[in-house]
Order: sequence, then C-alpha cells, then structure tokens
Amino acid sequence: MKRAALIAIGSELLRFDRPDTNTVWISGRLDRLGVETVSRVSVSDEPVVIASALRAAVEMADVVILTGGLGPTDDDRTRQALALALDRPLERDPAREVLLRARFSAIDLPWSDRQARQAWRPAGARWIENKVGSADGLCIEPADTTIVALPGVPSEMRPMLTEHLSTWVGDVDKSTMARSTFRIFGHGEAGVDERLSDLYDEPGIDVTILSAPGEVEIAVRSVADRRETAETQLEVVRGAVLTRFTGDAYVDEDRSLAGIVGDLLAGRGETLAAAESCTSGLLAAEITTVPGSSVWFRGGWVVYSDELKTRLAGIDPEVLEQHGAVSEPVARRLAETVREGCAADWGIGVTGIAGPGGGSQDKPVGLVHVALASARGISHWQTIRPGDRDWVRRRTVSFALDRLRRKLIGAGS
Amino acid sequence: MKRAALIAIGSELLRFDRPDTNTVWISGRLDRLGVETVSRVSVSDEPVVIASALRAAVEMADVVILTGGLGPTDDDRTRQALALALDRPLERDPAREVLLRARFSAIDLPWSDRQARQAWRPAGARWIENKVGSADGLCIEPADTTIVALPGVPSEMRPMLTEHLSTWVGDVDKSTMARSTFRIFGHGEAGVDERLSDLYDEPGIDVTILSAPGEVEIAVRSVADRRETAETQLEVVRGAVLTRFTGDAYVDEDRSLAGIVGDLLAGRGETLAAAESCTSGLLAAEITTVPGSSVWFRGGWVVYSDELKTRLAGIDPEVLEQHGAVSEPVARRLAETVREGCAADWGIGVTGIAGPGGGSQDKPVGLVHVALASARGISHWQTIRPGDRDWVRRRTVSFALDRLRRKLIGAGS
Repeated sequence: MKRAALIAIGSELLRFDRPDTNTVWISGRLDRLGVETVSRVSVSDEPVVIASALRAAVEMADVVILTGGLGPTDDDRTRQALALALDRPLERDPAREVLLRARFSAIDLPWSDRQARQAWRPAGARWIENKVGSADGLCIEPADTTIVALPGVPSEMRPMLTEHLSTWVGDVDKSTMARSTFRIFGHGEAGVDERLSDLYDEPGIDVTILSAPGEVEIAVRSVADRRETAETQLEVVRGAVLTRFTGDAYVDEDRSLAGIVGDLLAGRGETLAAAESCTSGLLAAEITTVPGSSVWFRGGWVVYSDELKTRLAGIDPEVLEQHGAVSEPVARRLAETVREGCAADWGIGVTGIAGPGGGSQDKPVGLVHVALASARGISHWQTIRPGDRDWVRRRTVSFALDRLRRKLIGAGS
Repeated sequence: MKRAALIAIGSELLRFDRPDTNTVWISGRLDRLGVETVSRVSVSDEPVVIASALRAAVEMADVVILTGGLGPTDDDRTRQALALALDRPLERDPAREVLLRARFSAIDLPWSDRQARQAWRPAGARWIENKVGSADGLCIEPADTTIVALPGVPSEMRPMLTEHLSTWVGDVDKSTMARSTFRIFGHGEAGVDERLSDLYDEPGIDVTILSAPGEVEIAVRSVADRRETAETQLEVVRGAVLTRFTGDAYVDEDRSLAGIVGDLLAGRGETLAAAESCTSGLLAAEITTVPGSSVWFRGGWVVYSDELKTRLAGIDPEVLEQHGAVSEPVARRLAETVREGCAADWGIGVTGIAGPGGGSQDKPVGLVHVALASARGISHWQTIRPGDRDWVRRRTVSFALDRLRRKLIGAGS
C-alpha cells in the first residue's frame, strides 16, 4: 500500500491554538484513492525546520505533499527548504517569469520584483499551474518519492490537488484499500468495542473506533492486492456491522443525523418543531445545518428560564415547583405545546442538566429528559451521561435526533 | 529562545478527518513558559515512522514531547521507537514491574503479562509517574535534547505535563517571551492588517493575524533577553492596538464575546431574549455556552419558517410579502416582540440569508439584518459578507453579540 506524509508550513499555524485543516483535508482525499497517510505535520517557516520535516517524510512515505510558503513574502521559504533538503540549487525560470508577468497584467495587478521570487524552483522541479492565485506549485521526484509543494490558501490548493492527485500517487493497484465509516447512536464505546471485537483479527481488515458526543464512529479499512477484493472484504464487514446494530448504524459518512431525519420527514411531508431548555437552540441550529431544512423544520422555542417555560409552553409553575424543570412532565409538556404552538406534525421537548453547576444527588449533571409528541401521542426518554457542558449538550442533540429517527423508521423506542 | 517539537502517536489519529488535540494543548502550555513550538506532528504507530519523526524533532528542537503508544497492547510501540531512534537497548526494569503489580492489586485489577510491557524502557530513561493510569511516562536526555514520552489519554497526560513541564524545559530566561491575544470585531482582515502594519517591523515583536467568522484574532509575541523587557515590549504593543481599535478590541483570550456581554448585562441586572431566523438557535446556544447565563438570558424563539414569524412574533403576512423575511422591518419587529414576549430588558432580532440557496441580486447570500430593542427604542444594522452557510451563521452570531456589547458599553452603533 502506498504511503503519504503531509507537511503544512507556516509559523502562524503554530501560533494559535488551532490545528491545520489542509493536511486533514488532503488525507481524506488520499484515503479515497487507497493511499495511507502515515504522518501529518505543521512546521514553522524556517528552512532548516522544513528541511528536517521533509527528510523525515521522504524516509517514511512514497508521496510527500507540502502546503504553504510558496508566496512572494519573506516568510515564504518552502522553495529554499526544498533546495536545502534535496541538495539542489535554486534556479530562476525565465519562461515562468514571463508567464507570471502576463498573468499579473491580465488582471491589472502591479508587478514587483518580489513577485518574481515565484519564478524560482529547485533544479529539476516541474511547475504545477495555479489557476486561481499567483503561486504555482512544484513537483520533484527524487528516487522513488514524489514530492509536491502547493500553496496554503485552500481555494488555490484544493483545485490543484483535485486535478493532479491521481497522477502524483500513480499506480496504487498493487495493494489497494476500500473504506467506510459507520456511526452508531445509543451505545457506549465499550459496548460497540465488545460487539465488534472478533472483527479486529480479520486479515486485511482494520477497525478503529472513536467516541463522539452521543455517538460512536467506526472506521473500517479493507486492504487487499486488488480493488475488488478490498471492496468485497469491506462489504462483508459492513454487513456484519449492520446486522449487529440493526436500526442503529447509518453508513453514509457525508450525511449528518439531522440530514437523515430531514429526509425521513420530507418523504412523509411532515414537519418538526423543538422546545429546548438545556440545549438552548443547539438542536434547532444543528437541524438547520441541513440546507433546505425549511421544508420540514418550522422552528420553536428556547425556554432557558423557568419563566419562559410557563409563558411560552404554559407549564404550570406548580409543576415546575413539584417536579423541577428537569423532569418528565416538563419534557412532555414542552413537546406537546411546541407541536401545537408551531403547528408542526412532530414536537420535541428537551430539558436537562448540562452543568457545570445545577447538579444534585437525585439529578446529576448529564441527566436529560427528551419527549416526542405527534398526533399519536407523546413518548418520553430519560438518559444520564456525565460530561462537560459542551459534551452533554451535543450528546443531547444527537440523542433527541436519534429518538426521532427511530420513531420515523418504526424502530420503536 | 528554546524550541519544542511535539509528536502525537497513533494510527487512529490519522484515520478520522479530525486533528489531534494533545499537541495543540501542549503547545499552548509551552507558549506560556516562553518556549516556541516549531513542529506538531501526528504519526502512525509503526516504529520506523515514529523513529523518523523523532530524529527530525531532535534536529530542530531542544525539547521533544511524544504522546501515546505507551500502553500494554500490540499497537503501543513508542518505547520500541525510542530505542530504535536513539540506538539504545530496551531494558526491563524489575523494580518498576513490582511497583506496577502493586498498583494493579491495590485497585483489584487483574495482572497479565501484557501489563509487564509497561516496565520496559530504553537504557538510561527515567520514569515519569502516572498517578491516574498504568502507563508511566519516560524521559531521556541524549546530548542537548530532552525527550519526553507521555500517555495519549488526556486525563493522564495533562497532570503529568503540568507537574513536570518546567523541569523538562529548564532555564528559559536566556531568551524569553511574553504573549497576548486580541480579538477585533467589525473589521476585515485586510483593514486590521493595514492598521497594524508598522508594528510588523518592531524588533522582538511578532504579530500574526488570523481571520475567524465575524472577528479577526491578533496574536502578539514579544521576545527579549529578560522577561521584564519582553513584558514591557508587549505592553507597548498592547497599548498601540487598543488605541487603534478603541471599543473594538478585547484582550482576555480565555473569555468569549458572549461571556463579556453576559458580564455587562449581569452588572446592570438586565436580561436578554433572542428571536432568530437564519441563525436558528445558534445565537442562543452560543450565549448559553457561558455557565451561569441563566441569570441574564431568558431564552427566545427560533422563527425559521415564515409562518412562525407571524405566529410567534405577530409579523403581518403583508409585511413579509412586501419586504421579504430578510428585511429591516422584520428584524425590528422580531427584536421588539421577543423582548416583550419573553419579558426581557433587551431583545435581539436576527434574519438573513445563510445560503447556499435563497440568494438574489438584491438580497445575496450573506445579507443579514440585526435589530436590538430596549426600553429606549430599537436600533438596526444591516451587513453583507458572503461565505458558506456555517460561516455566515457564525459571523452573524458574533456580529449581533458585538452590536449588543457596543450598546452596553455606550460605544454607540
């Protein structure tokens, strides 16, 4: 199986407490071609640092992709680092400079000598045309490795990569890969792990589990000599997972749970409204990440304060006093009244303790009540899973959407 | 200035389209000690790959920190990689095994031979006690470099790092650093860049700009021989930034815009309610990320469909017909009615076109109307910034909160 190492260049990537997104995006593309990413690195823009990272990358991978540091400023030092690491001179390419000047004059941008830096390349490098910006990419193939340098601006890098990646990667049929991602709602990581443990030893199959709020994600990779074999192996595993988690798993990695719920509702011509306490709009916001959700989502209430639970949902202050805001009767009443108040076919009511404060022995942080109202009546679920505020709220959104999904596919409660 | 290189180990880190969080967290800690992170890498768990990454890290840094791969399973290969890269034999430490066995029996966990793998170390390595889990860390100091390997589980890694980091880093006073982050709302990246450009050439000062939805983040690092000099330099830059962006900048990097708004409201004993169309709950969700926000945030409506704009906010269908749902009169009416309907001191109304569909020549994607109602009357703002759906919605949340913040500090519109 071919191996890739990815290098993101730029001190600014290390200055903020945020990760680089280019390398993550590229590794997703490589994955689809059956190429394994063995390293993703963000480095400062010092040539010696870039050169060290590049030498390590060449040791471990067949394809090395660098992003960033190809522009005209003093901080752009990727071409110097390539020359340094590969021990090749940097050469000015007069033909490329002519082309660059023409590009600048075509869009009425002033030319400066700085811009001419973008016409230099390590000896033997080929240009990769940038159709969006001014910094062209470079491709060098010393010995068995293909090294590609691309600009760091995603809108420039992505089309260049998309156009050429299969050429850089070359023939991957000798050992190839198929992959799929499953997501399971309503089971913990340990439970999923146990149900799948026998698959871990299947030859050519690689199962990885990752826990996210309210769901467990399962990545399955199948490696074989031929694509068909890899795909057949993957199908067997997919079947095994689906059987073990009937009604739980959904497969398409590009779709969200909200999108699936939306398709089910739209298919029935039905609509939804939500009344949220602890999630405070996060459920409605997640639902409307789906473009076109206005067809099936009406809106709802954020009833964060108890006063609004009474004002908007008509919940008797005595009920709040007696059962507390985080209780079954409150969740039921929220679902019922938001359904009526928003003239929707389905109403969801959510109330819980997101923390960090507000928990008690009886009602700990992580306790959530969810109710679902339709013309057929009201269903209610209670769940407790401790976690931090953000985690509890995200998990509650997934939990509520998954209950609705199960109702809609008739998988019951 | 001392330099660090960070290595996260584990194929699972590369399997999902998600970045590693341990190295990002550690680089934040190093920053505070005045140590610059020059490389952050995630690598697969093959010893040769880890060893290549480790050799590159030693070339470029004074301190190398590895996380992950120290446990008892077959996938845990960090100690082998350390031995390989540093060319030292792996040795069993009988004393550590006794200690491990005692730890297991103390908490009634069954001992297995696998667990004994955690008592092996490259020759010359010192143990770093793990007080939470079973995998102890390792510290090796070949030549001028300090290499530290820690477990990958954040709840085990973080206390170990917090306890020992200053020891591993050693004396950093020879060249030290102070840093601060500013955030500016209501200016584009180019505008901020221009206003700060003269600061870029200040010796010892390093200014980096990063654009996020609705805000521009500015990281300032000041490097000098002595801490006091670095801090004085930083203060000068801080003053310059604050002067140039009076009313715009806020400094404390650990606080959110919603938290600042909340403090201002709580200080005045006032409350807030929101009526959201395009943001569909995202504003309410962002507000309630602040623990204790129930003191000043009541809740509100998600009026995603036009029907709910009429039902909940009493907006005349003729107004919707005549001006459209994304219009000044609708935003004003939302702010006014949600303030009344939720009995709050302040009401925010938000309506806009988040895309990808729904835009037109007159009302393009990115057009947003925000209104703010109080006892003193209603203010309205219109803004257009194209972007993808998520970006437009997040930017709208920041924009609305910043308008409220300005009103509350009396910075006008």
